[in-house]
Amino acid sequence: MAMEGLKLFLVVLSAAVSVGVVSIIFVLRWVLYYKEGLGWDGGLPEFNWHPVLMVIGFVFLQGIAIIVYRLPWTWKCSKLMMKFIHAGLNLLAFIFAVISLVAVFDFHNAAKIPNMYSLHSWLGLVAVILYCLQLVLGVGMFLIPVTPASRRALFMPLHVYSGLLLFTSVIAVALMGITEKLIFGLSDPKYKDSPPEAIFVNVLGVLLVVFGALILWIATRPSWKRPIDQILNTPHTNGGGEDNAKVGQSLSQLSGTEADTCSDFRKRNNKSDDQTN
Amino acid sequence: MAMEGLKLFLVVLSAAVSVGVVSIIFVLRWVLYYKEGLGWDGGLPEFNWHPVLMVIGFVFLQGIAIIVYRLPWTWKCSKLMMKFIHAGLNLLAFIFAVISLVAVFDFHNAAKIPNMYSLHSWLGLVAVILYCLQLVLGVGMFLIPVTPASRRALFMPLHVYSGLLLFTSVIAVALMGITEKLIFGLSDPKYKDSPPEAIFVNVLGVLLVVFGALILWIATRPSWKRPIDQILNTPHTNGGGEDNAKVGQSLSQLSGTEADTCSDFRKRNNKSDDQTN
Repeated sequence: MAMEGLKLFLVVLSAAVSVGVVSIIFVLRWVLYYKEGLGWDGGLPEFNWHPVLMVIGFVFLQGIAIIVYRLPWTWKCSKLMMKFIHAGLNLLAFIFAVISLVAVFDFHNAAKIPNMYSLHSWLGLVAVILYCLQLVLGVGMFLIPVTPASRRALFMPLHVYSGLLLFTSVIAVALMGITEKLIFGLSDPKYKDSPPEAIFVNVLGVLLVVFGALILWIATRPSWKRPIDQILNTPHTNGGGEDNAKVGQSLSQLSGTEADTCSDFRKRNNKSDDQTN
Repeated sequence: MAMEGLKLFLVVLSAAVSVGVVSIIFVLRWVLYYKEGLGWDGGLPEFNWHPVLMVIGFVFLQGIAIIVYRLPWTWKCSKLMMKFIHAGLNLLAFIFAVISLVAVFDFHNAAKIPNMYSLHSWLGLVAVILYCLQLVLGVGMFLIPVTPASRRALFMPLHVYSGLLLFTSVIAVALMGITEKLIFGLSDPKYKDSPPEAIFVNVLGVLLVVFGALILWIATRPSWKRPIDQILNTPHTNGGGEDNAKVGQSLSQLSGTEADTCSDFRKRNNKSDDQTN
């Protein structure tokens, strides 16, 4: 990456990580200071794991998983290792989401509140199921060396689109969850009276949107993509098939792509940057 | 577009338009059948204009405005005319959104309900303000021939990103609005008792998400982009600057781009399709 592009990347990345970490601090302060704290007792402290694990796992970890290929200092690492990190972070996010669902179902059942009646619950459950499908298909397609390269190339745009759509949907579902919890959880004063907790958690919602917007910006800048490892290569370890589809624009902007040692990735990317910025 | 690509495009476009129209029918049935109907009296019939105008204008019309450049039968039309249609539809969507805001402020003031306390209202108002800014900057940059081509090219990726982010945010804000209205608007039976209205409006929420997902799919397929009119041209009427940035991938996939009459746009796009599908 050229110095200018790298500087901007680092600024946006730092902003994204900072906003993500502040969101986690906010959700922890919400449940520990304004609410009943954390516990696993079927009561409100168990419910409180729901927003905490969703923000840490399904929002923050998923966001980081999405942009892990964009970190320039990982471009020297093998693509296969980066795929494992990408899949691992997504798996961790999924596990957090599942525990988070168990917490809310437990709480509802203990408190005799119906499950799955709200739009938040419908879209949230669909998101978790599709996320699981995305994970299984992603591992099956890109990590296990059975899928032919041509099919991997065809599938990659769908994988990228679904990943960004699911990430966005999860944030939208979180905003609906915040709305529900502020209406049901505040009684005297109510949500409409804007007590400090209402303002504080509204700010958390705004932070989640800003985090999402920054991750989507990083993920969709063509000049910030990982340079391709090789044009023609084995279907597995270097992942030429999906690279061709994934970094389509970078690919076509690179005129001399035969050179392919790790040492010249910086030079190649300079060229790509000059043309797109 | 090649026959295969065109068929798929038409299927996805028909699905998007159908889901959008069904969403409009759903929101109309919601307020006319389940709710108090429409009126301009400071009461609930005035509030009901809020979801109706938001779904028709800020979701449906904005979605159509986003994909208007993707319609292959418009590729023979001048880029300038298409820009006016794009800007016009967005302006219409903005007007609908403003009237829709007036309706909800009127209703709140008459019913002595505080304004701007919820996360829905915060994010919604920010979206309307940023949408206005996007509209003003878009017209100033791409319709009024004063901005140098280089600046237009730099600004285009930001314009596209902001446009898609705003569209997505508006749908997320609509989902929060539906959540609020179903909690506040249903008393006996309540939202958690899943009366028919709750199920019906949850389905409306799902439809809005599906509409958004289809529009985002259409907007982000490189092979479905409008072919560039010219590589080097005047900064205004053909919009070479922003085209270069906007259709970057299509551009680099077209090997023989000198030929540039309207008659051969189909042939050129065939070539692009072959390479990406």
